[in-house]
Amino acid sequence: MMRRLLVANRGEIAVRVIRAARDLGVPTVAVYSDADRGALHTELADRAVCLGPAPAGASYLRQDLLLHVAEATGCDAIHPGYGFLSENPGFAASVEEAGATFVGPPAEVIAVMGDKAMARKAVAKVDVPVVPGSPDAVSNVDEAVAAAAECGYPVLLKARAGGGGKGMRVAGDEDELRECFTLARQEAAGAFGDDGIYVEKYLQRVRHVEVQVLADRHGRVIELGERDCSMQRRHQKVVEEAPSPALDAGRRQDLAGLAVRAAESVGYVGAGTVEFVLDMDTGAVYFIEMNTRIQVEHPLTEVLTGLDLVAWQLRIAAGEALQADPPPRRGHAMEFRINAEDWKRGFVPAPGTLTVFDPPAGPGIRVDTHCRPGAVISPHYDSLLGKLIVHGADRDEVLRRARRALSEFRVDGVHSTVGLHEWLLTQPEVVAGTYTTRYLTEALA
Amino acid sequence: MMRRLLVANRGEIAVRVIRAARDLGVPTVAVYSDADRGALHTELADRAVCLGPAPAGASYLRQDLLLHVAEATGCDAIHPGYGFLSENPGFAASVEEAGATFVGPPAEVIAVMGDKAMARKAVAKVDVPVVPGSPDAVSNVDEAVAAAAECGYPVLLKARAGGGGKGMRVAGDEDELRECFTLARQEAAGAFGDDGIYVEKYLQRVRHVEVQVLADRHGRVIELGERDCSMQRRHQKVVEEAPSPALDAGRRQDLAGLAVRAAESVGYVGAGTVEFVLDMDTGAVYFIEMNTRIQVEHPLTEVLTGLDLVAWQLRIAAGEALQADPPPRRGHAMEFRINAEDWKRGFVPAPGTLTVFDPPAGPGIRVDTHCRPGAVISPHYDSLLGKLIVHGADRDEVLRRARRALSEFRVDGVHSTVGLHEWLLTQPEVVAGTYTTRYLTEALA
Repeated sequence: MMRRLLVANRGEIAVRVIRAARDLGVPTVAVYSDADRGALHTELADRAVCLGPAPAGASYLRQDLLLHVAEATGCDAIHPGYGFLSENPGFAASVEEAGATFVGPPAEVIAVMGDKAMARKAVAKVDVPVVPGSPDAVSNVDEAVAAAAECGYPVLLKARAGGGGKGMRVAGDEDELRECFTLARQEAAGAFGDDGIYVEKYLQRVRHVEVQVLADRHGRVIELGERDCSMQRRHQKVVEEAPSPALDAGRRQDLAGLAVRAAESVGYVGAGTVEFVLDMDTGAVYFIEMNTRIQVEHPLTEVLTGLDLVAWQLRIAAGEALQADPPPRRGHAMEFRINAEDWKRGFVPAPGTLTVFDPPAGPGIRVDTHCRPGAVISPHYDSLLGKLIVHGADRDEVLRRARRALSEFRVDGVHSTVGLHEWLLTQPEVVAGTYTTRYLTEALA
Repeated sequence: MMRRLLVANRGEIAVRVIRAARDLGVPTVAVYSDADRGALHTELADRAVCLGPAPAGASYLRQDLLLHVAEATGCDAIHPGYGFLSENPGFAASVEEAGATFVGPPAEVIAVMGDKAMARKAVAKVDVPVVPGSPDAVSNVDEAVAAAAECGYPVLLKARAGGGGKGMRVAGDEDELRECFTLARQEAAGAFGDDGIYVEKYLQRVRHVEVQVLADRHGRVIELGERDCSMQRRHQKVVEEAPSPALDAGRRQDLAGLAVRAAESVGYVGAGTVEFVLDMDTGAVYFIEMNTRIQVEHPLTEVLTGLDLVAWQLRIAAGEALQADPPPRRGHAMEFRINAEDWKRGFVPAPGTLTVFDPPAGPGIRVDTHCRPGAVISPHYDSLLGKLIVHGADRDEVLRRARRALSEFRVDGVHSTVGLHEWLLTQPEVVAGTYTTRYLTEALA
């Protein structure tokens, strides 16, 4: 095991990583910004060091400071959490150059999977299907039209450097494509300083299904089942569940096999998630990307398998080998993201002071949070207050237990999405498990 | 399902029952004494009714009031929790006579299992071994000597009506037996108004191992594995774990078979626990008693099996049939009872106001409690603040996770046993899992 671990993050994931490290007997060093003074993660760690002012660029994203703190406090490993520097290949490389262990895959693997074109090429080589479209950015509108003709309309124009929906356009036919191509290009250039545009087949009714994998440093990759993250708003996951209600046993096994192949294609190491879309109109499955970090929704896999995925990240980083047989999964689980947002008014973030924060409990209930009554929710960071994870023998038990748990969840002082989840659990598409990625946007319209 | 459930208890088990009922969509009515006004269980229930003054005899034990409240609030079922009226056959009969459902076995079954001699006879009939000794109370010292000669010294003298160690004496030979017989008889008469004394073989190094069973109203009994409750002080369980470190697979199966036979011998219905002692000197196993209610330590079985035992109590009471195959069990679990006691000063109860109550969380951690910061711990009731249940892939993970969780558990305003558990987890016998029922008393001496 490592001698001491620097936890280069904040919020619930910092708390989560510190608990896993402590469970393994590894001392931890927390870091914090001025806005996070006194936060739970700083209390649970053996030591806590202030990085600087609240804006992440002046604290949590300061690679130089993080490396300095690691050295000064005798940390020989750094866990990046999610967000911030977790998928920054430069940071991963710097950590290793400094002689410490980056808890995650090698920098080159992060780099490949972080580049959409390279990732698609890597997995396509091992026959993992990717969404049909132009293999690279197209250089002009005629190339775009040619690519669209090959994969069929409607098509999606996507910024090469993009994310978060910016620079995206849907074209139903050639006229529309010609019309919006220049606009998409300008938007991409404005948003990302890169006007490269892809053409991709636009899938209208899809589910987002991702497969959790673990890979050790000895070449073994295992899969731990999928999570369905189709309940999204503006590409932000809102509710996740596992197993996916959209997969039967055969397709589940297919998807798992594809995920393992995708991870193997790049020599993956650590915990990672291979994301797919499942086209509900054709039944086809396509790789979209691989996240080379622990994900917010990882507890779903933990409650189904009984494994501690963050502890496994550390064990793998320390050289431990995985067992050949992944554990059997049990029951069903759903995760509800509790955000400090006014969901009835366009989900505007609602920073403020938590006067009441009283999460539910009981069998099958887990709440991962960094919040306590009195905590100040800063506008500088994401609005996640915590995650309610509900586990049960089957989906029906989970739905009933979730309704009960949400009704017990008391949050006051800031707006929260508890009420959104309560409302969702009354909706037929949610109860039946038939929702696609468009569901939430349309339901809220 | 029942129409509405009266929860005839308080504290963490009332909270637990209300949650299970709500998960099943059953409305609940809570009851409370003056001392429990504003308690969590009264908030979580759909309705709460005050029974009377704090002493249990004036509130929680008032059968007439409970039946009246049930009728007045339209409850067609009563869950007794544990303690209080949970093993009172008269109450079970009165509930049924009033036309409501008692969530537990039939009154006759409670009566049989509540009488040591009848219980021993019932299970001995189906070849479940009982501790060797006199089949009934002996009427004079010569009969006691004869019984002792048959089962072999040392022997234990036990009050027929007894419990809690009162009227108990150990005799190493005939002289000692003759010497202490009269004393034991007098003490029994004084404590219980009944001078009947049993002679039983005294087992010096035993583990207390109990098997959880569920039995439906259609004649099916399933077993859900054992719990080891050898960590006791004055016959009070302090830490429980499952599976038992003292059993191998063969003996585990034997014990499970005996438990099912014992339950079947009395036509058992509901959740019940068959308690055994395992003689570490000879390897023999003996039935000691059956608890005809849900037990404090039931969550261990829940985290291993994924079943909600309290929900199953309600489902069985409503006539639902069990599935033939009990679910597989996964991992290891320990439960730590967090009591408001000054364990460094003879475990004196420490009532008062909880100024701080901040339980741990994270993967594999469950805390069942009725406490919140500001709660007043009344001297009128047992001192249980809550139960820390730790689940992991194996015993080693559980021990490490338990140490971490206990170190996070912040209780202030009253003394608590958190520190006792932290100390226990440093002790070789606890780490190795080799402790017997004498361990804790000797370790604290």
